[in-house]
Amino acid sequence: MISYPDDSVAIGVDIGGTKIRFGLVRSDGLIFHTLVLPTKAAEQRVMEQVYAGIEQILLVWENSLASHRLNGIGIGSAGQIDFLRGTVHFASELIPGYTATPVKDLVTQRFNLPVYIDNDVNVLALAESRFGAGMDCRNMVCLALGTGVGGAVIADGRLLHGVNGGAGEIGHMSVNMNGPACICGSYGCLEIYASGTGIFNRYQELTVLNIKKQATSANDVVERWLSGEMAARQVIEMTIAGLGAAIASLIHIFNPEVVVIGGGIAELGEPLFAPLRSRISTLAMPSMLEAVRIVPAELGGSSNMVGAAIQVWEYGM
Amino acid sequence: MISYPDDSVAIGVDIGGTKIRFGLVRSDGLIFHTLVLPTKAAEQRVMEQVYAGIEQILLVWENSLASHRLNGIGIGSAGQIDFLRGTVHFASELIPGYTATPVKDLVTQRFNLPVYIDNDVNVLALAESRFGAGMDCRNMVCLALGTGVGGAVIADGRLLHGVNGGAGEIGHMSVNMNGPACICGSYGCLEIYASGTGIFNRYQELTVLNIKKQATSANDVVERWLSGEMAARQVIEMTIAGLGAAIASLIHIFNPEVVVIGGGIAELGEPLFAPLRSRISTLAMPSMLEAVRIVPAELGGSSNMVGAAIQVWEYGM
Repeated sequence: MISYPDDSVAIGVDIGGTKIRFGLVRSDGLIFHTLVLPTKAAEQRVMEQVYAGIEQILLVWENSLASHRLNGIGIGSAGQIDFLRGTVHFASELIPGYTATPVKDLVTQRFNLPVYIDNDVNVLALAESRFGAGMDCRNMVCLALGTGVGGAVIADGRLLHGVNGGAGEIGHMSVNMNGPACICGSYGCLEIYASGTGIFNRYQELTVLNIKKQATSANDVVERWLSGEMAARQVIEMTIAGLGAAIASLIHIFNPEVVVIGGGIAELGEPLFAPLRSRISTLAMPSMLEAVRIVPAELGGSSNMVGAAIQVWEYGM
Repeated sequence: MISYPDDSVAIGVDIGGTKIRFGLVRSDGLIFHTLVLPTKAAEQRVMEQVYAGIEQILLVWENSLASHRLNGIGIGSAGQIDFLRGTVHFASELIPGYTATPVKDLVTQRFNLPVYIDNDVNVLALAESRFGAGMDCRNMVCLALGTGVGGAVIADGRLLHGVNGGAGEIGHMSVNMNGPACICGSYGCLEIYASGTGIFNRYQELTVLNIKKQATSANDVVERWLSGEMAARQVIEMTIAGLGAAIASLIHIFNPEVVVIGGGIAELGEPLFAPLRSRISTLAMPSMLEAVRIVPAELGGSSNMVGAAIQVWEYGM
């Protein structure tokens, strides 16, 4: 990818199920200003909130940063986003009424600036490939282990989108065709083994006969694992098995230079990465293993917003 | 992809483990002339055979087709090919001594023409995307079900290569992390369920206590399945289960317009495709299923050679 050596800025918008993060970002990733607003998803007022936040950021720009050329608005959003059309192809009931919203057209009309929109994991991958763990890599697989499991792929320097923006749903890659049913329709998907929801559910199943032992959250399960508790160990070993199988397959499919893993569970660091790397080294072909690093995401909580903004230079110049 | 509407020609070379197919191909896929030579793999004389075949084709071109501009030489080859460097990154003992051969440099030096080399399934996918089942599709997943299972992916109009040409090893995607060990190091790979070798081996395991019942080949197993034999049905049902799980995952990963399946087993047609499509329709997300067709490869035995030649226009113009 090219570098953006100028001091121009863009507005980044990160639309999540509960909050929207806005920022004014310079081409080298420096954040001048940020703002967080509630999504108001239940009230179906997402777009109103998006407009309000952008207006706030524009005011700050006009008042104190107008010497920096404003290149456009980049949006990262929850849901399946159709990058080319700039619409929400599908959003779950987490944001009711959001499906089919023509976000790109609406924001373009309102602010008369170039606008780009992609899904949240794609913009995260973009940020990591520019300023983080995948810097200077042209072939990168990115996994986001949160409540669910998100994915994004950069191949030959470009994000994969697929025909209507659905590419990269790595959480719904089956690692066990005889495994439990997944919400997507398939069986034994990675998400069942490696998401917070999956980890929590499997732990509750294991301890169902011992109510006193039940966990309060996925984090709770992870803490029990770190303290050596048996049932938690059984659950997290399955998480590592599932992740190992999926990542070995992804290495065979993409032959990447780097696999970047972000999200809450990845913040565990070496206790997770050491056994995971060890397992992948036995599963993947040596000819492809030699080329790849398995590393945690490096950028913090603003990475989606920064990655969203970065689209403006990535596609607009 | 662009179209190539001129009457220029290229030399296509398809290097397999036992034979090498050469041809003189026009930009619209028309084959003017073909030639087949033995690979002489055991004698380690592959490159000599490649030179000899190209010289023969050049003679034909000079004598009777020199009014068609000759644009270059395109090669498709067995093994893991490093497309960018034009070398053999890894080849099994099927072609001893072939690993690390700088094919592109050697052929360029000898004939002083532009040369491109890629692996056999990638050039097959290129041919199908230009003239076959994936015509006009910019997002295509291609599976070749032969002795092993090969794969290739076209995303946003471009073949995926990965960092050293290894991308697309779909046969070594695990669909059952608790399944049997695969030669690649992983477990329950698609190749175990859907390759000729896998089908044959699993049938022999099932009938091991009944020597008279043992099959002579994968084709034999398939014929027994078509005639309703019980053990063969059990084996092919596992083939369909493995293919279904893998293709649903690939749809989630790539969000393609078309999945093209070639190779011996795919030639079965509807008896294979009908139950396979039916299974995938229950496994894949509706938002991505609506966009994709699952179809057999359309081009015949010369498709690798034609796809090899097509590289000359794909990358050279």
